[in-house]
Amino acid sequence: MTAKTLPFSAEKIKEIVAEYGTPFHIYIEKDIRENARKLVQAFGWAPDFKEYFAVKALPNPYIMKILREEGFGGDCSSLAELILCEKVGITGENICFTSNDTPAEEFAKAKELGAIINLDDLTHINYLAKEVGLPDLLAFRYNPGPLREGGNAIIGYPEEAKYGMTKEQIFTAIEQAKGMGVKRFGLHTMVVSNELNVDYLIGTATMMFELAVEIKDKLGVAVEFLNLGGGIGIPYLPEQEPVDLAAFGQGVKQEFERILVPAGLDHMKICLESGRMITGPYGYLVATALHEKNIYKHYIGLDACMANLMRPALYGSYHHITVVGKEDAPADTKYDITGSLCENNDKFAIDRMLPHIDIGDILVIHDTGAHGSAMGFNYNGKLRCQELLLKEDGTVELIRRAETLDDYFATLDFSRL
Amino acid sequence: MTAKTLPFSAEKIKEIVAEYGTPFHIYIEKDIRENARKLVQAFGWAPDFKEYFAVKALPNPYIMKILREEGFGGDCSSLAELILCEKVGITGENICFTSNDTPAEEFAKAKELGAIINLDDLTHINYLAKEVGLPDLLAFRYNPGPLREGGNAIIGYPEEAKYGMTKEQIFTAIEQAKGMGVKRFGLHTMVVSNELNVDYLIGTATMMFELAVEIKDKLGVAVEFLNLGGGIGIPYLPEQEPVDLAAFGQGVKQEFERILVPAGLDHMKICLESGRMITGPYGYLVATALHEKNIYKHYIGLDACMANLMRPALYGSYHHITVVGKEDAPADTKYDITGSLCENNDKFAIDRMLPHIDIGDILVIHDTGAHGSAMGFNYNGKLRCQELLLKEDGTVELIRRAETLDDYFATLDFSRL
Repeated sequence: MTAKTLPFSAEKIKEIVAEYGTPFHIYIEKDIRENARKLVQAFGWAPDFKEYFAVKALPNPYIMKILREEGFGGDCSSLAELILCEKVGITGENICFTSNDTPAEEFAKAKELGAIINLDDLTHINYLAKEVGLPDLLAFRYNPGPLREGGNAIIGYPEEAKYGMTKEQIFTAIEQAKGMGVKRFGLHTMVVSNELNVDYLIGTATMMFELAVEIKDKLGVAVEFLNLGGGIGIPYLPEQEPVDLAAFGQGVKQEFERILVPAGLDHMKICLESGRMITGPYGYLVATALHEKNIYKHYIGLDACMANLMRPALYGSYHHITVVGKEDAPADTKYDITGSLCENNDKFAIDRMLPHIDIGDILVIHDTGAHGSAMGFNYNGKLRCQELLLKEDGTVELIRRAETLDDYFATLDFSRL
Repeated sequence: MTAKTLPFSAEKIKEIVAEYGTPFHIYIEKDIRENARKLVQAFGWAPDFKEYFAVKALPNPYIMKILREEGFGGDCSSLAELILCEKVGITGENICFTSNDTPAEEFAKAKELGAIINLDDLTHINYLAKEVGLPDLLAFRYNPGPLREGGNAIIGYPEEAKYGMTKEQIFTAIEQAKGMGVKRFGLHTMVVSNELNVDYLIGTATMMFELAVEIKDKLGVAVEFLNLGGGIGIPYLPEQEPVDLAAFGQGVKQEFERILVPAGLDHMKICLESGRMITGPYGYLVATALHEKNIYKHYIGLDACMANLMRPALYGSYHHITVVGKEDAPADTKYDITGSLCENNDKFAIDRMLPHIDIGDILVIHDTGAHGSAMGFNYNGKLRCQELLLKEDGTVELIRRAETLDDYFATLDFSRL
């Protein structure tokens, strides 16, 4: 069981609501830092370790700056994400650029920043060489396909994923790039998403360690780093447990000692690119109950909608909900909690048992710190909301303003109508 | 079978690509106008008829202006959509405002524009009265719940839909509003989405006509108009047939004569609020093949991604694809057609048989004229693309510019970093 409690008192959140109005996402600096340190500590045994925060999960520079201060780099897969890293001072090999179907201008920007370029396909070696020139260091993304059992619903089975190269292609890629002057190599994979099974996560390390050994044996190339990807899940459901990071780190260490050390690869740098696990549990969408409706079901309508949080509508995902000030009241009423977007799947919860809700109550939706604000759209003319940071000193900072109608209309020129 | 041909020659589209670059959505004025006229003609028998274009489907004022010229109004469910109508001169009762979980400011704007306000819930009568005052004319949204069999996967079964009022509540609403001074009434429903079965569509008319008669009998109120909603489907698949609009109109006419005329309701205005059927088939997403990749499957990567068209990723929807200049070549190669967004579901087509594609080929994705551009997001730092109008005189107009990185960063203040 994960205690789905709030990191702020009812009084504090009401104060914040009074100042900023709802809806907003709020992120908790203290918890993000503590969690980041736990991850770094879990891999303290490694000769070198780097977590590249998956910018996609929460592309807010104020959060990225906190993570940079904790020693994290940035995992980018678009021009916008590269620029965000640059803005917060994440540059050079603190960026891992893992894109697919990549346009030339994005490779150019990555090279300009000195980022690690992680190629998704064999054909990208010549494309990169032709368009921007090859760097000294290249990484390649490995897709084990049917060699790796499992995968899950969000990311799909590896052999059906558009990403990465086959094992044979990885070997070809290293030889080809070496022949073209590349001097340093890294390997990357990403085979799961939102995975809570620590053994499966460790299994990815096993796979990559064995691959590095095989490459050394067959090609005589000592890969410098192994990026095990992200995919560490978080307990969205109260009955779920978070991944034990210390156990994860120790499991990877055992495999490191079993596989890499005897092969003479004991200087290997270990990398991760988690997003969800880093910020997901430390973000909350805060909204106000606007309407109550009783038809065939009992509805509470909020002033937030799926433009602010797509996961329930998109994946049917569970996000815990707390009614502020009613934390200890019995959850004796069954509600659908809806937004106002004109799509019937705009529901934050379906058939959820909650305390009796009154109009004007503040509802806090948990675990919105990753893939929350980032996935918002403007469908039906809806606007994306503000983002706040609850700082360690207890003050609140606006770290993204709400969209306005002017933003919504920015790409239209009404003058020629 | 629907002939999935292009409304422009390979030469013409290459000219447009040379001028504007890819990706873009392009809409065909001539086809939109012809289709609009077909719908108006199908209901030419009605004492009065109005199609309120569902702005959500394609919220572009240049398209809305064309539709206004064809006599259409606007179906809105947000403040942004109300303002779009205002900008193109759609005002007064040419707007039907059908929102749910509605904030007061949106009701206020709707009332200011003189729009028909269509209430989603019984409680909204008092809310509207208190917040902005009741207008002379009110409409109510009917949700038949289990009284109406069917529904479909997108919109769900009526009894699980968050929209509208029960039959009993509709009666209560009319009596209550009448008692509060409302003089004119309309009724609305929306029970399906993307429905190709004309009998089911006609069945909605039957249901609403019978309801109007019952209201007249029991309450002595002659409802002024019946809005049968939208939900008319389009043939995304080549083997599907479009809805026969003339047959739909005639079917509704028969029910009108059978049910409404004998009840003395022969002046009833008939309304629709189609979106998809009005513009969907007359829009195309045009992109360029950027990369080819062979791993466990064979991929072509485009310079468009799911930020430009969400339906395949979101619903697994089929969108036909034509490779420009290869319209008559054999479809002998199986591809997954992907975008560059860092999500494995960013695929426009999976296992699609197409002619052999070369890098640089132009691919045209069909049926993107509704719920295409409108549903785009900025996840992973992706930008939404430009929209073009192919005018009746053969010229092309830019009717929405592409988003830029400045747009993407507009809600961030980097100065306090």
